[in-house]
Amino acid sequence: MQVWKDYQAKNKDRFLEELLSLLRIPSVSADSRFAADVKTCAEEVKKRLEEAGAENVEVCPTAGHPIVYGEKIINPALPTVLVYGHYDVQPADPLELWDSGPFEPVIKGDNIYARGSADDKGQFYMHVKALEIMTKTDTLPCNLKFMIEGEEEVGSSNLGIFVKANKEKLKADVVLISDTSMISLQDPSLDTGLRGLSYMEVEVTGPNRDLHSGVYGGAVANPATILCQLIASMHDENNHITIPGFYDKVQDLSKEERKALNDAPFDEAEYKKDLGVDELWGEKGYSTIERTGIRPTLEVNGIWGGYTGEGSKTVLPSKAFAKISMRLVPNQDWIEISELFKNHFEKIAPKYVKVKVTTHHGGSPYVTPTDHVAFKAASEAIKATFGKSPIPVRGGGSIPIVALFEKELGLKTILMGFGLDSDNLHSPNEKYGLANFYKGIETIPYFHKYFAELGRTSA
Amino acid sequence: MQVWKDYQAKNKDRFLEELLSLLRIPSVSADSRFAADVKTCAEEVKKRLEEAGAENVEVCPTAGHPIVYGEKIINPALPTVLVYGHYDVQPADPLELWDSGPFEPVIKGDNIYARGSADDKGQFYMHVKALEIMTKTDTLPCNLKFMIEGEEEVGSSNLGIFVKANKEKLKADVVLISDTSMISLQDPSLDTGLRGLSYMEVEVTGPNRDLHSGVYGGAVANPATILCQLIASMHDENNHITIPGFYDKVQDLSKEERKALNDAPFDEAEYKKDLGVDELWGEKGYSTIERTGIRPTLEVNGIWGGYTGEGSKTVLPSKAFAKISMRLVPNQDWIEISELFKNHFEKIAPKYVKVKVTTHHGGSPYVTPTDHVAFKAASEAIKATFGKSPIPVRGGGSIPIVALFEKELGLKTILMGFGLDSDNLHSPNEKYGLANFYKGIETIPYFHKYFAELGRTSA
Repeated sequence: MQVWKDYQAKNKDRFLEELLSLLRIPSVSADSRFAADVKTCAEEVKKRLEEAGAENVEVCPTAGHPIVYGEKIINPALPTVLVYGHYDVQPADPLELWDSGPFEPVIKGDNIYARGSADDKGQFYMHVKALEIMTKTDTLPCNLKFMIEGEEEVGSSNLGIFVKANKEKLKADVVLISDTSMISLQDPSLDTGLRGLSYMEVEVTGPNRDLHSGVYGGAVANPATILCQLIASMHDENNHITIPGFYDKVQDLSKEERKALNDAPFDEAEYKKDLGVDELWGEKGYSTIERTGIRPTLEVNGIWGGYTGEGSKTVLPSKAFAKISMRLVPNQDWIEISELFKNHFEKIAPKYVKVKVTTHHGGSPYVTPTDHVAFKAASEAIKATFGKSPIPVRGGGSIPIVALFEKELGLKTILMGFGLDSDNLHSPNEKYGLANFYKGIETIPYFHKYFAELGRTSA
Repeated sequence: MQVWKDYQAKNKDRFLEELLSLLRIPSVSADSRFAADVKTCAEEVKKRLEEAGAENVEVCPTAGHPIVYGEKIINPALPTVLVYGHYDVQPADPLELWDSGPFEPVIKGDNIYARGSADDKGQFYMHVKALEIMTKTDTLPCNLKFMIEGEEEVGSSNLGIFVKANKEKLKADVVLISDTSMISLQDPSLDTGLRGLSYMEVEVTGPNRDLHSGVYGGAVANPATILCQLIASMHDENNHITIPGFYDKVQDLSKEERKALNDAPFDEAEYKKDLGVDELWGEKGYSTIERTGIRPTLEVNGIWGGYTGEGSKTVLPSKAFAKISMRLVPNQDWIEISELFKNHFEKIAPKYVKVKVTTHHGGSPYVTPTDHVAFKAASEAIKATFGKSPIPVRGGGSIPIVALFEKELGLKTILMGFGLDSDNLHSPNEKYGLANFYKGIETIPYFHKYFAELGRTSA
């Protein structure tokens, strides 16, 4: 609608400035040294929601980082959309690989460079600005509720508790999230699902102290060597995961479904060039799109042990550690998979060492039916602003809380993300396209318009 | 001799105080941040040698850390002993595992706790005090030369250059080193050899940046996973090292030699209890004494990659690293073994990743013939002060420079160490027994006495 276009045109510079100031707050949820910044960020989000026209805005304390809630109820008879997002960000390290400060946002070319620019400050803030546009132009077509949390990057465990305790307050017809990516602005896509996650940490202990590798080397098991052997054993020669029962509940897609997925535009040469690799890797028998969409994975996210400083130290370490996470697909259950991992790892550990396995967090996979009225509304909205219908794709990432929304609130979730895979999420030099930011703000009101028109889906 | 005993009895407290002040200097050679402390330590050693009666003492600069040289020539016709030691120490980390500051020496029970207390400040300083005793009591039986270096813990590469350039200055009949251990004060032993060392570092690179493990996980090789697979492949099911040609030059000992080795007192239950392990590990077909003495090994000294901080980060790392060292036995050549490792590692690396292999340093193994006159002199000296002849054993550690002494100076080396395997060399809470310190000072003059009496071995 012209009125939306005009309002954004008049205010687009301010919208950007507001986002940049939000990106300057280092709201790293995983690292307790940033706890105060996370709180500051929550207060800032509250202020922005109020300015945009939201009511009953509150910073809700939790056992961890707070949740910001706000709403704009114009007519109880109209459908209600619950907008979810997160204001926390991933740790910024390795710092030395950033071209500019992770929390000193800069505009270079067509992009905003900063930690959280795409994941998820730049994306949830589009919804705050869309709210402003609709309220200021008096065109809000339905009721809106906002729930912006501060623990998405560490598993949303307290959000789960909050949701269970506030079912009435959160009553809605659908959940809308912008925290994923599309193929490109030229080939818009819409996620039909997300992978689940099970994040583990393992500790392998050999001798009770670091030893001289000459005096003891050869006679005592080296926990770093044993850890490598255990990790190596978790993929077979076809890169299948060897944990017994791991694939039991994995849903196999039909030929047609797999064909549809593989019809999405994908340029392998370009993909390899962007990543700087000569060869791709993965589970035998599946395409890259399938490997990152419909197949589960097991990745080492971090490994450490022994002397890692400058020069050399001839030590036989006492301990070695690894952070290992698995991406899950329907119908794997993250708690069950975490158990399978733990039992298997403890079982295969040789008697020379002691192992400790802990679960960090996780979430189950999720699928959005493409025939859902809200999915149609999202498709129409994208068609209205991008000029072509989005390609349905399976997202490889995880938003652990989505499965819980369905379980606890009985709500389906629409994953209308405007980022790109190349945004360096969780990596140095995270970026978000200016065009993506503005296009998102332009598209969101259409979603609400079409969803209101297509009618209330639950009662 | 009584005069030696009396002099030590009168001065033993001062001897200890002097050692403690030397231990307070953090002369860590591997870490450039301690370069100034290493230099300070060299100057201190010079001062102590002069006070003990050495002449022509100088701090000799090198491309790295300096070498302290000094001598006491009483009569060119008498035999000359070249005493070698090192004033540099291993890095102290992990600091949190020390019960007291690594460079704040404390006496607890019968031990001195400090980094370098046994390796090697506490041991080379016994020779400085033995010199003082013999000069002050006018009983020095032969000529002495001292060469105390500052780079033993980082491979002694500059000492090698120094030795080649100063063959005349270093002319002697035998090299004497106290930088190893004995079985116990009740069961004194004398090393008949040392293992060599080849210290490597590997870097495995996957994608050109850290990636989101959900967006890319399953489609791109994870360098941490690949590194684990490569390391795991380097031992077979019998814990034999799989590098082609690695064992080709390994000298097999005769049945008799192996029996002699295994006759040394060894309490496996006690050994396991001390290390806190339920089971020992090692190469099939060899005893623990053989695994640490006459067999080569491959150990991971350090491994790191990805996110190793608090909490979780769902990253697929760009790089993973490991420090890997091999202990070598006669007649393996460390340069040849380093090449074999490099070629093998590069060969087995899959095309999904790029690998970089660098050599830190190394040294070849060494054996002392038990029929050598200086070995007999050392045995007699130990018998004189311990009351029983030492058991000949193969040391598992490495002093890379020893092989070079033989090659460049044509000198055999006597490894008369007074430490214990339980001294936590290279580990937190390194210690050295007070009794070991004093017993060493008491024993050393006898070595010189008997060596002088048994006569000059070369001319």
